[in-house]
Amino acid sequence: MNDNLNNLLAQLHDIAGEGNVFGHGEIDSRYRVDWTAGDVGQPVAVVRPRSTQEVSEVLSLCSRLGQAVVTQGGRTGMVRGGTARRGELIVSTELLNAIEEIDPSAAVMRLQAGVPLQKAQAAAAEAELSLPMDLGARGSATIGGMIATNAGGNRVVRYGMTRDSVLGLEVVLADGSILESLQPFVKNNAGYDLKHLFIGSEGTLGLVTRAVLRLRPPNRSQSVALCGVESLEQATGMLRYMEGCMGGQVTAFEVMWNSFYVAVSKLPGAPCPLPLHYPVYVLIESLGADPSTDVVRFERALSAALDTGALADAVIAGSGREAHDIWRVRDSIGELLARMKAFAPFDVSLPVGEIAAFVGEVSQHLAASVPGRDALFFGHLGDNNLHIVVELESATEAHPVEQLVYGLLRGRLNSVSAEHGIGLLKRDYLSYSRSVPEIELMRRLKGLLDPRNILNPGRIVSLSGTATTEGETYGSWTIV
Amino acid sequence: MNDNLNNLLAQLHDIAGEGNVFGHGEIDSRYRVDWTAGDVGQPVAVVRPRSTQEVSEVLSLCSRLGQAVVTQGGRTGMVRGGTARRGELIVSTELLNAIEEIDPSAAVMRLQAGVPLQKAQAAAAEAELSLPMDLGARGSATIGGMIATNAGGNRVVRYGMTRDSVLGLEVVLADGSILESLQPFVKNNAGYDLKHLFIGSEGTLGLVTRAVLRLRPPNRSQSVALCGVESLEQATGMLRYMEGCMGGQVTAFEVMWNSFYVAVSKLPGAPCPLPLHYPVYVLIESLGADPSTDVVRFERALSAALDTGALADAVIAGSGREAHDIWRVRDSIGELLARMKAFAPFDVSLPVGEIAAFVGEVSQHLAASVPGRDALFFGHLGDNNLHIVVELESATEAHPVEQLVYGLLRGRLNSVSAEHGIGLLKRDYLSYSRSVPEIELMRRLKGLLDPRNILNPGRIVSLSGTATTEGETYGSWTIV
Repeated sequence: MNDNLNNLLAQLHDIAGEGNVFGHGEIDSRYRVDWTAGDVGQPVAVVRPRSTQEVSEVLSLCSRLGQAVVTQGGRTGMVRGGTARRGELIVSTELLNAIEEIDPSAAVMRLQAGVPLQKAQAAAAEAELSLPMDLGARGSATIGGMIATNAGGNRVVRYGMTRDSVLGLEVVLADGSILESLQPFVKNNAGYDLKHLFIGSEGTLGLVTRAVLRLRPPNRSQSVALCGVESLEQATGMLRYMEGCMGGQVTAFEVMWNSFYVAVSKLPGAPCPLPLHYPVYVLIESLGADPSTDVVRFERALSAALDTGALADAVIAGSGREAHDIWRVRDSIGELLARMKAFAPFDVSLPVGEIAAFVGEVSQHLAASVPGRDALFFGHLGDNNLHIVVELESATEAHPVEQLVYGLLRGRLNSVSAEHGIGLLKRDYLSYSRSVPEIELMRRLKGLLDPRNILNPGRIVSLSGTATTEGETYGSWTIV
Repeated sequence: MNDNLNNLLAQLHDIAGEGNVFGHGEIDSRYRVDWTAGDVGQPVAVVRPRSTQEVSEVLSLCSRLGQAVVTQGGRTGMVRGGTARRGELIVSTELLNAIEEIDPSAAVMRLQAGVPLQKAQAAAAEAELSLPMDLGARGSATIGGMIATNAGGNRVVRYGMTRDSVLGLEVVLADGSILESLQPFVKNNAGYDLKHLFIGSEGTLGLVTRAVLRLRPPNRSQSVALCGVESLEQATGMLRYMEGCMGGQVTAFEVMWNSFYVAVSKLPGAPCPLPLHYPVYVLIESLGADPSTDVVRFERALSAALDTGALADAVIAGSGREAHDIWRVRDSIGELLARMKAFAPFDVSLPVGEIAAFVGEVSQHLAASVPGRDALFFGHLGDNNLHIVVELESATEAHPVEQLVYGLLRGRLNSVSAEHGIGLLKRDYLSYSRSVPEIELMRRLKGLLDPRNILNPGRIVSLSGTATTEGETYGSWTIV
């Protein structure tokens, strides 16, 4: 261990206390994994600040030393944005886990960045309100991580992205200064709305330490159906139709292509109530306030759609248990992935009207270049968001498959990341979605806010002359 | 006319054509007014570009010449953000008025910045969709102006601010470069979401030329009630209760204090169906999809609230005509203002739980310092947004009244502008709501994006060494 490192560790000890700094040999394995990879990177150390003030002192120190930092929340990211590269210091938010205040009459919650989503949801429910942010990783994903990545999830069609639930934010800037904007207001046009600069910036412009979230009234009725349709166009029609019928209460509209449904049907105890021959399946959920009329309205709308042929087939959940079983079809993606040796995941946006053609083209090209592999297509149709998972024999196949899929995307209006973010894994493809002036402005903002490039360096965009100690080698990735 | 000015005019002619450039003596009076003032400022000229490319050429020219520019949309702003100061060039978006595309299956609309709101709403309705952005100035306010100011309105509690309806944006930067981010996606995490930097920046960071807006399903049922309650606390309880009952369909929750209602009742043909003695009145609107059950649900919810004493009194509109009459109570504010010699308007946010005490304090202090004047209190309770209008004998009284009201606000979490923006009129009070680090970051962003300070200079924050030709003298304002 060299003198510089000893010096860094000693100063971190002074800031955060002995028990909250781990040198290279003492780093628990949990700090070295995320949802895309096992033991990755070689952090110099881990520090767990106990307060915003300690975060400020840590960043001030790192800024003086030119020490690169990576912020870690729940480590459930998909783009290698929160794991350390060689020589980086991990700043974990796990001790910043207090829910500071819930005001039921104002329907707001103030909390620290390291609070896991599920804990925040439970606290809102206890106050007879609801935090609409939701995703599969709710047990581990932190509020800070979700804000930093502007996380999506299954309810975006109704409640928006994480950005839409954030009223106030506290951020520590690269030089250690604290930017506190914790106003709990729906409306605030007093100058630039600075929080939006940090939301979705993946920790590259500042480190989120606290937030004020907007809570919603609780939902008392749940209606869930699984439907079979003849085409994606028919599914799109159903989305607009159901939104019109349910008056803003459609909470999820999840589309699954035939190959996805067939793959789920092969799982042990498969929860597949519809026959296997429909080209497209749709899970529709509507949450409302009045169990006595909401469910009837939902059934009537679907029944009318069956009568007119707008829908080929449908099963409606008759109980909470059946609703859960229908959701299991969509949620089986985790089990399908666990059974693959390796896979390449995609999370793209494109105009609704072009999704069907794009799925067709990708299928055709994959069949030619990696024949015999499963390709699963599914997504959040109401949000333009298409997920694709391509089964691989090994991680070495990932790069050509990425080239293929992103290459087909490139000719269209597109986003290479609808919700997962860019991180390291998609950085080479950012220019497929963003123009040169857009990327140049991103670089200038990064340069303004983090001139020494110490905050999650190399994620989203790379700058020259950085503090990064490892070369820019993360063009691709490994599955373990 | 000096040579520099002749040179500017000649070059503007070359860019936008003779008929679209007006020199000092040829400027129509409409370019010199907004909703706070009549003939103000002394613009050097007006130019009306016909395309994004022409806007780019105009800004490129002004950037080279160090010529200050003010962008004008519908001139219905309330903070003197869109009227020219001496020596500024007015860039009017009035010829950028095309609705370029509506895609009903994707529920999106692409349009130019100068389109008036009402025209955009009508186009959405023709496609059997709805553009939820709405405010009183819909006939003249432009989409670009609403985006630049992140305009609010009456439906924010359900649909959010203008920001929440913007999917894609095209902006011309100070140097004339065009930043096109017109993706029509609900989800797009491909790098920093740059559009949020420009939305609500009041034209100081870039000039909005085009946008993609998100459309919503149309509403088919309308329920409107006017209620009397005993206190603001009871009104807050009703808000949470009605949100819970109506499952996300509450579209407006407008609070009016007794003095507002009494003032309306004195207007000729006053539409006041409730007695005059309630401390607080609330207009509740719920828009839904199913006329057969929504109205019953709304009535049942209010009837139960009357039974439990959560509500003191209520009238429910039995027809569209009656709904219109109830809305007239709230909309009478325009007529009340027209009858005042002068007035000081406020548009603030503060925590819901502190609004009642704040209203009490302001009333008490006003009674002492400007006795006998009407002070009207009303607002959008669901959005923390309190409006105050103080009647004045003349505009010279405005400054001390501002000092009084903002002074009482200062000790609380607050926003001096919930929805109107800062412009010139509230710039001196920005520091009451924003901390030194926040304002400093605003300045640095302005410096990064507009280093010569040519875009709406002096609005929101002032920079030293600017291109502004007039001194920073707009601390107060005049009524005409």
